[in-house]
Amino acid sequence: MNVHDTPPAASIADVEAAAARLGTHIRRTPLLSSPFLDEIAGRRVLIKAECLQHTGSFKARGAWSAISALDPGVRQKGVIAFSSGNHAQGVAWAAAQHGVPSVIIMPSDAPALKIANTRALGAEVVLYDRANEDRDAIGDAMAAERGLTLVKPFDDARVIAGQGTTGLEIAEQAAALGVTEAEVLVCCGGGGLTSGIAVALADRAPGMRVRPVEPMGFDDVARSLASGGIERNASLTGSICDAIITPQPGNLTYPLLSRLCGPGLTVTDDEALQAMAQAFLRLKVVAEPGGAVALAAALYRAEALEGDTVIALISGGNVDPAMFARALAML
Amino acid sequence: MNVHDTPPAASIADVEAAAARLGTHIRRTPLLSSPFLDEIAGRRVLIKAECLQHTGSFKARGAWSAISALDPGVRQKGVIAFSSGNHAQGVAWAAAQHGVPSVIIMPSDAPALKIANTRALGAEVVLYDRANEDRDAIGDAMAAERGLTLVKPFDDARVIAGQGTTGLEIAEQAAALGVTEAEVLVCCGGGGLTSGIAVALADRAPGMRVRPVEPMGFDDVARSLASGGIERNASLTGSICDAIITPQPGNLTYPLLSRLCGPGLTVTDDEALQAMAQAFLRLKVVAEPGGAVALAAALYRAEALEGDTVIALISGGNVDPAMFARALAML
Repeated sequence: MNVHDTPPAASIADVEAAAARLGTHIRRTPLLSSPFLDEIAGRRVLIKAECLQHTGSFKARGAWSAISALDPGVRQKGVIAFSSGNHAQGVAWAAAQHGVPSVIIMPSDAPALKIANTRALGAEVVLYDRANEDRDAIGDAMAAERGLTLVKPFDDARVIAGQGTTGLEIAEQAAALGVTEAEVLVCCGGGGLTSGIAVALADRAPGMRVRPVEPMGFDDVARSLASGGIERNASLTGSICDAIITPQPGNLTYPLLSRLCGPGLTVTDDEALQAMAQAFLRLKVVAEPGGAVALAAALYRAEALEGDTVIALISGGNVDPAMFARALAML
Repeated sequence: MNVHDTPPAASIADVEAAAARLGTHIRRTPLLSSPFLDEIAGRRVLIKAECLQHTGSFKARGAWSAISALDPGVRQKGVIAFSSGNHAQGVAWAAAQHGVPSVIIMPSDAPALKIANTRALGAEVVLYDRANEDRDAIGDAMAAERGLTLVKPFDDARVIAGQGTTGLEIAEQAAALGVTEAEVLVCCGGGGLTSGIAVALADRAPGMRVRPVEPMGFDDVARSLASGGIERNASLTGSICDAIITPQPGNLTYPLLSRLCGPGLTVTDDEALQAMAQAFLRLKVVAEPGGAVALAAALYRAEALEGDTVIALISGGNVDPAMFARALAML
């Protein structure tokens, strides 16, 4: 079956259902702006500050969506996820809020702070040795033994629908400012956030076009959209934007991206750091490198954008002080 | 006339009228939280992130309130303010949004970035030599010549009412979380924000108690509340929390503070820096030192607080990278 014939992984009805489940448990993050950023970009820039979401990234939405949709009897046994980053914290938080156990499988060389944070959010963290152990085997065994449900980071219809609730808010918040046409730039890893927002906006703001933004050299989605087939990254290391680097677009996200999203954009690590510095200076929010690539494209890829308004996601703010200091040094 | 007999500088009707004028021109800033901050404080902590307001501080509210209330013929001639800080940017922005000129009188040794920012927001910046010139004489002459209206930083009923709109939002946002009783900690300089919020909450959330927070050694408001008369600071320099250091409470703000606000709290500069670091790490927002004192009190003055919920304002985020780096070094 050609990927273009795959049924939609998430429909607008799925996004609406996710929004109903999320309710007020998830923050309605603000749509920010600054005349100073408009000046740099040469057009109006609106910034959806999803770094202000619970756990510091949009991942809390997808995790809540997936966990809240489980049958209560299944949910009660708990959930499991593989992640050392934002997805881990989103799942740990959402599980704790639902009063159910969560197991997060992390490499033993993950930063101590991330391990500690995930534990503090209520998760049981299971560490594995990247060199000598198979994380899937460990996870599968635990899941089978305890009846845990796997929460995938992006290639899951309910996760995509949860991330898509961000798009419902963007449509409403932009319309309140009189904006119905814009390019919407989204930090893109596996494509869950990008495709979810695209599904929401195709229905609620059809005058908007969603464009994925990736780190230069790790642009599997941009290349996949350009070639018409799933392309892989040559390497998975070597960028400070590690939070949004994945091997390739997902089997569920790719058809949505392909059908709904415009050409991809890429930015350098230095541009991501500069965007973090501008977010600090002009918006007073903390962005992580991978969470700043869309703002970087809005500010520094003016020639590749169309229209008089651009909307950029800041998708997360979980950055350590040393990396943030590197961004501040750009000022 | 005893200050206690002074008629209220701003009533709840004034705050409501200001809110109607502000409309959607002012951001409804989010009420944030983090389980990690609850853990430090030993109680639930809700943070009103007014650093996300236009121009990076609550001052945009009071400036908009004052300027929007002027007779159109008077407003058209323009406004004037004395400030090198957040008030300058608030007035410059609000005037530009109203399409009227603004003159900001600043000392010639003010940081270049603040001068540039205020100009970029549309103001005419007039510099004076602190040692040899009288800023009031310069301002009075310009105001008389051009028919400019002075916008005071805090001792003005319309400014107080504008800042008080923050309190209307706090009451609504807290009620949505089921919170109707709490201590509300407010970063306090001249008392415009503190007294305005107190007026709003006395009407909308009478179970809440507003408490001013000041830098240690610059606690004119706390001492005034304790003694029952206006007390002055011995010095105006020597704290990194310079944005909230004023000689003494205002003639209009003091009676409101005295009637409505609980005992004051003080924190050290290091505690303000630690609170900035926690706001970075757990909330993903940028706080300036003076804007972080209320959060510092919420986190590090647990023994002086009552109840199971504390609400803390972050009043501004206009901090230079070097000072922010000092805060990050606390982590």
